[in-house]
Amino acid sequence: MLILHDYLPSGNGYKVRLLLHQLGIPFRLVEHDVVAGATRRPEFLALSPVGKIPVLQLQDGTVLSESGAILCYLAVDSVIWPAERLERAQTLQWLFFEQYSHEPHIAVARFLRMAPDDPRQADLPRLLDRGHAALAIMEQHLTGRRYFVGERYGLADIALYAYTHVAPEGGFDLEPYPWIRAWLELVRSEPGHVPIDWRPN
Amino acid sequence: MLILHDYLPSGNGYKVRLLLHQLGIPFRLVEHDVVAGATRRPEFLALSPVGKIPVLQLQDGTVLSESGAILCYLAVDSVIWPAERLERAQTLQWLFFEQYSHEPHIAVARFLRMAPDDPRQADLPRLLDRGHAALAIMEQHLTGRRYFVGERYGLADIALYAYTHVAPEGGFDLEPYPWIRAWLELVRSEPGHVPIDWRPN
Repeated sequence: MLILHDYLPSGNGYKVRLLLHQLGIPFRLVEHDVVAGATRRPEFLALSPVGKIPVLQLQDGTVLSESGAILCYLAVDSVIWPAERLERAQTLQWLFFEQYSHEPHIAVARFLRMAPDDPRQADLPRLLDRGHAALAIMEQHLTGRRYFVGERYGLADIALYAYTHVAPEGGFDLEPYPWIRAWLELVRSEPGHVPIDWRPN
Repeated sequence: MLILHDYLPSGNGYKVRLLLHQLGIPFRLVEHDVVAGATRRPEFLALSPVGKIPVLQLQDGTVLSESGAILCYLAVDSVIWPAERLERAQTLQWLFFEQYSHEPHIAVARFLRMAPDDPRQADLPRLLDRGHAALAIMEQHLTGRRYFVGERYGLADIALYAYTHVAPEGGFDLEPYPWIRAWLELVRSEPGHVPIDWRPN
């Protein structure tokens, strides 16, 4: 059985849990308390030197890190992976956008509220500015569209939903983004949708 | 013909130029002076709202951004794209690692030396710390290996070479990383290798 090393409040981990559930793939969840430093301990670094969750452990022990790579690995044999070359590239484009221009600001602003002793507290105004810049790009793209790629629910929606739907926990008001709010509703209504703190039985 | 919107000193752009050259794909280069703010101007944002190079414009006008997505789009029909599902995921893992844990520190430290008026100058010590953490992870992975994935030259090598080989320009001493230095030499010796400031005729 697949083993997922994860932390329930993590949007990066949630992406993988949501996809696994929607694809009906059974897995065992191993939880690590990121805020308490669990992913910086030698046992975890021996598993994955990058020291970040999620980490997917395959049946043969092989370990995969980086949520975007894990999503693609899991999706590749399923209907959620686009058949067309351009849509695959557009999916990857949004996965990279999420990791470079969205998560480092929107997720980190939220994390700083969970970790008040983190030395990055002074970065908050900059994180809010950049997070809103990412939301504005998403709003512009979604204007007149229902989903991010090919007008079908896909990995880009899963990846961007993870931290966008909890952006208010980081101090982001989503009121000025009506297309994002409509898209969040649509993602929530997908078959097999589960909330961020979902864990398998 | 493909059009690549790019900036010669950019490692992100270089990844795409290097791959296009090694795959023998002809393209037209359109240069934008990032340091002078060219990618923040309305004309560029109309092309690509994220406001970053590289941007690949396909024959039908479709635009792709994010260097990692462009690399995968271009490589997918070629021998450089692994045939095996796990190696594809491992390739993506390193592409995401590069964009999340490497480029934002190593490339930005280098950029700050080119742009002395950038308000992020105070971040330099933190960028150096985090950049060295990324280099240490690469060194550990390369120990006993020649390339990043499957012991063959691939997209992960191209993506990580781009900013690692110019890391000294950002203040990173590569002396403590013998496996990285051997790998840099190996990448440089690949057929069709060109330097970062290469442009097509």
